[in-house]
Amino acid sequence: MSETKPGTETGAQSLVGTLADLGVTACFANPGTSEMHLVTALDSEPRIRSVLALFEGVATGAADGYARISGMPAMTLLHLGPGYLNGGANIHNAKRARTPMINVIGDHATYHQRYDAPLASDITGLAGPNSAWIKSVDSAGDAGKLAAEAWTASFGPAPGPVSLLLPADSAWERGGPRGTAGPAPVLRAPDPEMIEAAARRVRDAKKPMILINGTALDEAGLQAGARLEAAGIRVMTDTFLARQARGAGRFAPGRMQYFAEAAMSDLEGTDLMLLAGTSAPVAFFAYPEKPSLLVPEGCEALSLGGPDHDSAALLLALADALGATVSADPMALQRPDAPTGSLDAASVGASLARHLPENAIVADDGVSNSLPGFLATLTAPPHDWLMLTGGAIGLGMPLALGAAVAAPDRKVLCLSGDGAGMYTNQALWSQAREGADVVNVVFVNHSYRILQIELHRTGAGNPGPAAQGMLGLASPEIDWAGLARAQGIEGHDARTAEEFDAALERAFAADGPQLIAAHVPG
Amino acid sequence: MSETKPGTETGAQSLVGTLADLGVTACFANPGTSEMHLVTALDSEPRIRSVLALFEGVATGAADGYARISGMPAMTLLHLGPGYLNGGANIHNAKRARTPMINVIGDHATYHQRYDAPLASDITGLAGPNSAWIKSVDSAGDAGKLAAEAWTASFGPAPGPVSLLLPADSAWERGGPRGTAGPAPVLRAPDPEMIEAAARRVRDAKKPMILINGTALDEAGLQAGARLEAAGIRVMTDTFLARQARGAGRFAPGRMQYFAEAAMSDLEGTDLMLLAGTSAPVAFFAYPEKPSLLVPEGCEALSLGGPDHDSAALLLALADALGATVSADPMALQRPDAPTGSLDAASVGASLARHLPENAIVADDGVSNSLPGFLATLTAPPHDWLMLTGGAIGLGMPLALGAAVAAPDRKVLCLSGDGAGMYTNQALWSQAREGADVVNVVFVNHSYRILQIELHRTGAGNPGPAAQGMLGLASPEIDWAGLARAQGIEGHDARTAEEFDAALERAFAADGPQLIAAHVPG
Repeated sequence: MSETKPGTETGAQSLVGTLADLGVTACFANPGTSEMHLVTALDSEPRIRSVLALFEGVATGAADGYARISGMPAMTLLHLGPGYLNGGANIHNAKRARTPMINVIGDHATYHQRYDAPLASDITGLAGPNSAWIKSVDSAGDAGKLAAEAWTASFGPAPGPVSLLLPADSAWERGGPRGTAGPAPVLRAPDPEMIEAAARRVRDAKKPMILINGTALDEAGLQAGARLEAAGIRVMTDTFLARQARGAGRFAPGRMQYFAEAAMSDLEGTDLMLLAGTSAPVAFFAYPEKPSLLVPEGCEALSLGGPDHDSAALLLALADALGATVSADPMALQRPDAPTGSLDAASVGASLARHLPENAIVADDGVSNSLPGFLATLTAPPHDWLMLTGGAIGLGMPLALGAAVAAPDRKVLCLSGDGAGMYTNQALWSQAREGADVVNVVFVNHSYRILQIELHRTGAGNPGPAAQGMLGLASPEIDWAGLARAQGIEGHDARTAEEFDAALERAFAADGPQLIAAHVPG
Repeated sequence: MSETKPGTETGAQSLVGTLADLGVTACFANPGTSEMHLVTALDSEPRIRSVLALFEGVATGAADGYARISGMPAMTLLHLGPGYLNGGANIHNAKRARTPMINVIGDHATYHQRYDAPLASDITGLAGPNSAWIKSVDSAGDAGKLAAEAWTASFGPAPGPVSLLLPADSAWERGGPRGTAGPAPVLRAPDPEMIEAAARRVRDAKKPMILINGTALDEAGLQAGARLEAAGIRVMTDTFLARQARGAGRFAPGRMQYFAEAAMSDLEGTDLMLLAGTSAPVAFFAYPEKPSLLVPEGCEALSLGGPDHDSAALLLALADALGATVSADPMALQRPDAPTGSLDAASVGASLARHLPENAIVADDGVSNSLPGFLATLTAPPHDWLMLTGGAIGLGMPLALGAAVAAPDRKVLCLSGDGAGMYTNQALWSQAREGADVVNVVFVNHSYRILQIELHRTGAGNPGPAAQGMLGLASPEIDWAGLARAQGIEGHDARTAEEFDAALERAFAADGPQLIAAHVPG
C-alpha cells in the first residue's frame, strides 16, 4: 500500500488511490464533464484498468461479471443521476446476484447544487433503493475515508452494489489522506445449534431437500452437496444463480423449475425444505390462480442461513453433523455427437457441449433458449456458469465483457436472446476494443418468445394484431452479424445445426470477440 | 367518449380506455410479463397507436418527442423497476423539457410483492424523484380514476412526466368505471401588477433583456418578442429549449451561450434581466473559478412568471404595457450556396439550410456539432427545433421517432453525435418498423468531443493515454451506415461537403427513415 501525505492529492486522486490500495483493479466507465478529475486520476493509477462503455448499462453489467469471477468489486464511473439510471437495470441484477460493486457517481459541485442545473436530480433518492450503501463525499477531505467505507460495505453483511457520490469540487479540491479498511468482511459462519436442529429434522423427514445458492455452488460447496445427496437429501439450486461450478468431475444438483406449477409438481411430497444461502422459493411472477410461494403445503421450510451466510460452510457442517461420508457421483465427461439438420435450442446445446473449452465461463442471458444448452453441458469439461439473477434482460454481453476482463486466460461464452441483446448491444464495441475473448451466441428468433409464452399463462386473452406486434421483432429483421461487424466484431450467421457447429468450433479456436447469429425457430 | 358499466372491464382495460377517452393516442412500449393485460387491452383500443421499442429509453424519448409536437401526453409501458430505470435518463430529459408524459409501470401483483421476487424493487422510491406525480393502483377499481388523475397531473402546475404503477392483479381483475377529468390544466396567466412593475423597471433600465422559454417560443410568443426587441429589450432564449418555432418569416431571438465565461461576457452591462417561462440562468456545470449563476453583478433579475406560466401571454402583456407597437424584422428566406471541400459542422450546417423542407421538425442531440446548423437554418423555411434539455445524451433518435409518429405529414431531421447516438441506437429499428419519416444525420468524429473540450475547462490536467482513451471512440471505429442497415434503415457515408449535400438532398426526397454518417473532424 502506498502512503501519501494529507493534502497532496485531490479528492478524486485519494478516492481512486484508496480503491487501488484496497485491491480494486478495474473501472468500467462512461464519464462526463463532472467526472473529468476522476478520469485523470485513473490516468495516473496503473493498478486500475479503465474500460470505456458507450452506455452505462454496459459498465454496470461488466462490473457484475468482473466481480463474479474475481471475487473483488470493480468500480464504475457514472455521470450524475441519468448515468446512474442508465446503469440501473444491471445494478438491479447485481443486487439480486449479491455482487459487490462500487458505483462512483459524479455530481455537481456542492455549491452548484442549489441552482438546479439541467443535469441535477435527487441522486440519493433515485439510487438509494438499489444501493446496499450510499453516501456523498461532501468535502474533499473525506474522499479517501468514504471510498474505503464503500469498499467495505460492498462486501456485506451480504455483498451488493454500493453508491458513492463525488461532487465535482470534492473531486478537484486538495483533500485528506487515503482511506484504509480492515480485511473485507466475510460471510457468516454456520450456527452449530441450527445445524444440529436441522440434522434432527432431516432424520425425521420422509422426503427432505435443501435449496442452495451462493458459495454452496463453488467447488467445495458442491462436494458437501454431493455428500448430502448421498445421505438422502435432495439438493437443488435456485432457478437463477450468480455463479455455479459445473461440468465433468463435479456434482450436479437439481434446479428449481421456472414455472410455478411445474415447480410445485416437482416438489410434491417434499416435507422438509432446508435453505442455505437463499430464501424460500417464490414464483418469478404471479399468475391468476397460481401459487406465489413455492413451498408445498405441509412442508416445513427451515433456513440454515440466508445470503449473508457462507453456504458452502453450511453444507459442510450439515454433512458432518449427519455423518454423511459417502458422496453422490460427479458427472462423467461426455461429448455428444455432432448435431445435424435444423437449428434449434437443442442442437445449439449439443454443439455447446461438444466444443465448450475447459475452464470456460458462460454468461447466460439466453432467456427461452438456454435450458437445453445448460443441461447438455453438464457433462462438458469443468466450467463456470453465470446467470441473469434479477430478470432485467440485457445483461449477457456486458457480463461476458466483465468476466473476460477478470480472466483474460479463460474463454467466455455469452448466450443471449435477440430481444435481450438489443438492450445493451453497445457491449460488442467494448468487447472489440478490449480484445475480450468472448464468443457471443445470439439466439435469433425475431421475437420476445418468453412473452408469447407468458401472454397465455397470465390469461391475458388471445393476442390480436397489436398485441402480436408488441411481442415480435421480425419487422424488420435485425441483422446481428451486421450489427457485430459495425462495432468491430466478426459476425457469422448459422441457419443449420451443421453450420452452427462449424461456426462455434471456429469461434472458440479464434482469439478475441466473435458473434454467431443462431437462427432458431420463433 | 365511450361509456362502460362498472365491473365490465379489467383494471388494464379501464386504465387504457380512460386515457383514450381523455385523448391519448400513442403508447410507446417495452412490455414484459407483468404488462400482458395492458398489451391485450391496447390490442382492443383502436384510438391508441402502440409502438414497440427495444429499450425503454427509446420509449420514453419517443413519448417526449410525441408530446412536444402534439401537445398531448403519450403513455409508455415500462416493466417494473428495471424498465423504469432503463427509461429513466430520457424521463429526466422530459422533466427538464416540461413535457407531459404518462409512464405506466407494471408491477408485481399486490399479494406477490411481499415475497421479494427477483424483479421486485422499490419502484415508488426510485421513480419518485423524477416523477411530477406518482401513485400505484392498489385495487383494480381505482385504475380508471387514477389514470385520469395521472393524465391531469401530467399537465401541471408545470407539465412533466408522471408515474402510474399498475400491479398485475389490479390489471387483470374486473374493476371500476373509467375515470373522468375536467379540461387539461392550462399554464398560468400573467399577473397584471407584475407586468406593470416590470414595465416600469424596463423604462428605468439602461440595458434590459428578457430571457424566455416555454410558449414564448411559439409563433405568437415570438411575435410579442419581436415587439419587445423593437422596444429596446434584448430578447434571448435559454441555451436549451424544448421547442422553438424558427426560420424565415419568424423573429429570431438571441440565445444564451453555453460556456459560463462566454455567457457573462455576452451579458456585460445588462442591468435588468426579466424572466418569462424560465428561471435565472445557471451554468450547465460548475468549473473552478467560474461563476455558477449567470446574472451579471448589479443586474436585477425579475421573474414575470416561471415554467408554470404561459410565457407567450407574459410577453404579449408586457409588450402591451410598454405600448410597443413596432416589431423587429423577422428572418428573410435565404438558402446558402452548396458547400464544397472538406466536411465539417459548418458545411453540414450549410447543407441543412439549403435542403431543410418547409415545416420540418429538427430533433437535436448533436452535442458539439449542432451550433453551425442551428445558426445557418435561421433563414431556412419555417420549422420547429427540439433540443436536449436535460443533458442526458441519447435522446435524439428516440425524440425524432416520437415527433414523426405525432406528425406523419412532416419531415423530421435528427442530428446526433456518434457518442450520443450509441446510447439509444435501437431507436433506428423502431423508426424502420414504423416507417417514420426521419433523416438521421450522425456526426461521426469518433470521440466524445465535448468531453475533450471540458477536460481542459475543468482544469483536470493533461490527459494521458488512459484519459484520452476514455474520451475516444476510434478503436474500433463504428460503422454507422452498417449499424443502420442492420436495423433495416438505409445508411450512407459522407466524407466531403459535396457528398453530404447530395446525400442529404436524396434523403429528404425519399420516404421513410434514412441515416447519413457525416464524417467530421474529431
